Amino acid sequence: MNFSSDTAAPAHPKVIEHLVQANAGPAASYGDDGWTLQAEALLSDLFEAPLRAGFVASGTASNALALGLLCPPTGGVICHEHAHIYCDERGAVEFFGHGAKLLPLTGEHGRISPEALQEILQKVDERFVHATPPKALSLSNLNEAGCVYTPKQVAELANMAHDRGLGVHMDGARLVNALAFTGASPAASSWASGVDILSFGLTKTGAMGGETVLLFGANADRFDELEARRKRAGHMPPKQRFVAAQIIALLEDRLWLELATHANEIAAALADGLQNMDIPILHPIEGNEVFAKLTPDQTAKLQEGGAAFHVWPDGSARFVTCWNTGPDEISKALALL
Amino acid sequence: MNFSSDTAAPAHPKVIEHLVQANAGPAASYGDDGWTLQAEALLSDLFEAPLRAGFVASGTASNALALGLLCPPTGGVICHEHAHIYCDERGAVEFFGHGAKLLPLTGEHGRISPEALQEILQKVDERFVHATPPKALSLSNLNEAGCVYTPKQVAELANMAHDRGLGVHMDGARLVNALAFTGASPAASSWASGVDILSFGLTKTGAMGGETVLLFGANADRFDELEARRKRAGHMPPKQRFVAAQIIALLEDRLWLELATHANEIAAALADGLQNMDIPILHPIEGNEVFAKLTPDQTAKLQEGGAAFHVWPDGSARFVTCWNTGPDEISKALALL
Amino acid sequence: MNFSSDTAAPAHPKVIEHLVQANAGPAASYGDDGWTLQAEALLSDLFEAPLRAGFVASGTASNALALGLLCPPTGGVICHEHAHIYCDERGAVEFFGHGAKLLPLTGEHGRISPEALQEILQKVDERFVHATPPKALSLSNLNEAGCVYTPKQVAELANMAHDRGLGVHMDGARLVNALAFTGASPAASSWASGVDILSFGLTKTGAMGGETVLLFGANADRFDELEARRKRAGHMPPKQRFVAAQIIALLEDRLWLELATHANEIAAALADGLQNMDIPILHPIEGNEVFAKLTPDQTAKLQEGGAAFHVWPDGSARFVTCWNTGPDEISKALALL
Amino acid sequence: MNFSSDTAAPAHPKVIEHLVQANAGPAASYGDDGWTLQAEALLSDLFEAPLRAGFVASGTASNALALGLLCPPTGGVICHEHAHIYCDERGAVEFFGHGAKLLPLTGEHGRISPEALQEILQKVDERFVHATPPKALSLSNLNEAGCVYTPKQVAELANMAHDRGLGVHMDGARLVNALAFTGASPAASSWASGVDILSFGLTKTGAMGGETVLLFGANADRFDELEARRKRAGHMPPKQRFVAAQIIALLEDRLWLELATHANEIAAALADGLQNMDIPILHPIEGNEVFAKLTPDQTAKLQEGGAAFHVWPDGSARFVTCWNTGPDEISKALALL
Repeated sequence: MNFSSDTAAPAHPKVIEHLVQANAGPAASYGDDGWTLQAEALLSDLFEAPLRAGFVASGTASNALALGLLCPPTGGVICHEHAHIYCDERGAVEFFGHGAKLLPLTGEHGRISPEALQEILQKVDERFVHATPPKALSLSNLNEAGCVYTPKQVAELANMAHDRGLGVHMDGARLVNALAFTGASPAASSWASGVDILSFGLTKTGAMGGETVLLFGANADRFDELEARRKRAGHMPPKQRFVAAQIIALLEDRLWLELATHANEIAAALADGLQNMDIPILHPIEGNEVFAKLTPDQTAKLQEGGAAFHVWPDGSARFVTCWNTGPDEISKALALL
Repeated sequence: MNFSSDTAAPAHPKVIEHLVQANAGPAASYGDDGWTLQAEALLSDLFEAPLRAGFVASGTASNALALGLLCPPTGGVICHEHAHIYCDERGAVEFFGHGAKLLPLTGEHGRISPEALQEILQKVDERFVHATPPKALSLSNLNEAGCVYTPKQVAELANMAHDRGLGVHMDGARLVNALAFTGASPAASSWASGVDILSFGLTKTGAMGGETVLLFGANADRFDELEARRKRAGHMPPKQRFVAAQIIALLEDRLWLELATHANEIAAALADGLQNMDIPILHPIEGNEVFAKLTPDQTAKLQEGGAAFHVWPDGSARFVTCWNTGPDEISKALALL
Repeated sequence: MNFSSDTAAPAHPKVIEHLVQANAGPAASYGDDGWTLQAEALLSDLFEAPLRAGFVASGTASNALALGLLCPPTGGVICHEHAHIYCDERGAVEFFGHGAKLLPLTGEHGRISPEALQEILQKVDERFVHATPPKALSLSNLNEAGCVYTPKQVAELANMAHDRGLGVHMDGARLVNALAFTGASPAASSWASGVDILSFGLTKTGAMGGETVLLFGANADRFDELEARRKRAGHMPPKQRFVAAQIIALLEDRLWLELATHANEIAAALADGLQNMDIPILHPIEGNEVFAKLTPDQTAKLQEGGAAFHVWPDGSARFVTCWNTGPDEISKALALL
Repeated sequence: MNFSSDTAAPAHPKVIEHLVQANAGPAASYGDDGWTLQAEALLSDLFEAPLRAGFVASGTASNALALGLLCPPTGGVICHEHAHIYCDERGAVEFFGHGAKLLPLTGEHGRISPEALQEILQKVDERFVHATPPKALSLSNLNEAGCVYTPKQVAELANMAHDRGLGVHMDGARLVNALAFTGASPAASSWASGVDILSFGLTKTGAMGGETVLLFGANADRFDELEARRKRAGHMPPKQRFVAAQIIALLEDRLWLELATHANEIAAALADGLQNMDIPILHPIEGNEVFAKLTPDQTAKLQEGGAAFHVWPDGSARFVTCWNTGPDEISKALALL
């Protein structure tokens, strides 16, 4: 009954299998290996577009490298006030961005509202040198409330951003869960809706550590700059084949979709169970996260019974399900209540 | 016959074994797991001292995080002019150090000479605000010429640095090879000789990716700052148990020493073979690297025969041996000549 | 009728006089001159305390240098959401702070409310490495609504900050106006109420360019670090005597107080006049700034009549008075309405 | 007898005159004033080309802002090993360049030799992500040995740099002295010979503080970026008219040329006198600096007699002459010997 995070889950057996296969003989260092090539090709297939991919150790690194490309040190990055990059990455965007500024917006269920975006964009006066102008928009999908942006929602916000010359980034640490929920294609959910650079994560899906920075369209021409920044940040793993092999494991046969679908279904089952007990659910269940308003008594019962979960800043209990969360864990947790 | 780098080698089977063992059930994220605790305890045993350890994705990250702790943005880091941090890390120290300056010194066989260090230290005038004063000394052991600093040599330089208020860092990406050569203890080669922070690497020894930042003595009190910097740099792996498990694999039963000893012996055998053909060897063989002065004809023969190695900036051929380099590879390479 | 800013005003004749006097013969560069010594001594007298002073070209530089000393790159600076450092300095604090993060709070009339400060401080969990902990508090006095913090108000906020280990900075670009309003001593309004580092400005008072960073108490020991940062930022003027001479001009015979008192009185007269016409005044008049809610018609009349002022983000008209704003300018402006 | 630096000199009376004239009535802040416009127009006339100008407080700021525009954080700046930016600006280029790396070259009499430049440029392998590629070349004219680059010499080096895609910067803190010596036009010595961005200083010529960043050609389109960086660095003086007025004073009627010619002539007279006593002069006299090899006895005599000068790192005595150095000071100094 560990609902603390999808980063608490082990890796899927297929990931181990691919690691073992990749562990045969010598291979060129720093990404000049066959696994890296293959992983990039599989990503290109998955997103139905040419792209360039950089493989890194953490989602924080992926987000910060991506935004370092999209926003100059004198610019700002618009994000949701609860965004991981704003609240939970210890200033990584500011570090990689050499002092770039995050500009937080509000919005229900973790989604930036078009109105809030419109308002901040309309206020921008590029001739007013004293204020930091926004230069990038960052959307999390799934967002921090466990909710999705549909392709249409992404496009609406991305178009507004592009119209003002901003680049568009997506923090896709849980994009697989969003895709499993919406049924939309990876392409439709990213570049085809205006995403310029995507931080596409597979660690939470079932890797040991497999995060990517994906450059779409014209941004692919900036791959050399990404490489320079990866190296400089210590995010060019010497034996990169072992990151690439994990990506391959999860992309082959759309394993990622199977795992994300499972995690989403289990989350939905948990939410159903809680609602049946009249426990308020704070956000629509659109992925693998459930935010519930528990009484102190309920919280205590769960914790004493051995269920792990985080109490969120708003006082709610956050439950995250994973590729290996079993139906029995849900039953057991519900039984404790 | 891949002598290109020890980062081209696969991982040792024990590393895979430990990864599989660690892949059982949930574990707390970001280092709050049992493997991390165990790995830190094993490191403390190995170095016979209390210490704090941060686990990161690359040697570049380890060096840059360590020097970011030892040197303020307004200070400088003394290093050898061929040091990896000066030549091969794309400005990582400058990035993590927020513009700190590297101050390169010369010295034979990759070793900073005490005279050169003395000279730069004597010139320092702390009251002259215009020049960047050195605040840290970084030694690579093995260094870039494949040579060691003995504990005595480390102590001589470290004492000079400490006397002027500098912190002392060691880039130990191949420290295991130095230890296998000198027979000195890890303690004697590091903190007992004045090393304040050690970048201790096991990736080149036989891990998939296992690098550490080790804080000794009073520096251990700065662990919270290291953690903040790790997080901020995206170098706090969400599923850190999988890095820790690799460290454990290589520390248990001193596997690292066995592997390093093997690599060193193979390198010595290669050097012997080359010398027997009157091929000049440029640096003493004190680890797992051989720098040889080949004729264009010899270079061609080797390359055509399938031997991989790098041509170094000074024109020499660099051969690196690994935990799994076989004697047959040496024979075959020598036969090609 | 230029009410656009106190930076639009010329310098006071005494400032010119002192510049001319200082322009005699050679003097040591970079602050090793007699004028610098004298200016620092006069500041020490004014603040009735030992202190160290750095002289810089702009208030932005002063604020950013001060906060760079108080807040590490991994920390945050609490400020008002309308603070100059948050809205109008193009990310200078983030630049000098190497990516330090500003944490904006709300509060009426430009003042951080004790409740808002309490709330953010109580939420801090130093063990949670993922979030940026506040390390400094920055108060503007006058603030951006033209209002003061009394010594008591400063002390209340500063004590809360100190209790949690934060340093306290004051942006005193218009501190002279605050002092003229409250009648409190410079000492009571700064270090005696808990201010660790003060950005004390005299440019708006009547200099051509005279801004200072004042280090009080234990922070004075960090003067060498300030000097290193000043030099590195290009803020150590080669002929510093000409900045120091301006400071001297405004400190001698408390000229600053005379000028600030005049500016405040003129502002009060303007506000009175506007209120007599039932034009709403948005903030208490506690210095040399008046924020008025004009109708479009009134705005047009003033602008067409030649009165210069800025329309503020909230739609109000901001009028700033200076050392040389004449009563006739007020009468003329009021007559236009 | 103050030969310590041209920054020790007072301002020329014309500078004071213009300051007094500019001190009349209100003027728009932050560079939106008539003096700024006029100064930029005069600079454009002087350099016989369209250009954009930013006015800053120090040569350090000018150099660092210029190089921040020309070199990305992942790149390097080639300079002479004795360059002011390398030795005497406390890492300002590294700070403004967000960790960009200085790449020092040797060369006689402070001049980068074409051979040294050729060598470093030929070694560049853009595909080798690990090393920092040079992205800008910085030339000091006068350089740190008091010697000039002729337009032909500038063009030779600049062409080599441009051929490899590098931008070219000139540190012209003493460009006026170089122009007075070579007789070449400002245009020929800068953009017409390949200089992209010029740090043109007038503080040492006779201003209180007047330094500029001049953007030529296509770089002029990056003026908005310069403005953003100026603001962010605290180098956009609120009352900028007072910097601009000084520039105007020194440009009108080519006052700069008159003053620089005088300083150069005085330096030549000093060098002649020293050579007549068989005191070795280390570098050709091509501006307002004389480097002489004094005996300890000679040094003592001068110092005891009241002559101020700096002992240089190479042990020589550096004498700098200024717009107001009198022939009597030379006679007196020579008499002491």
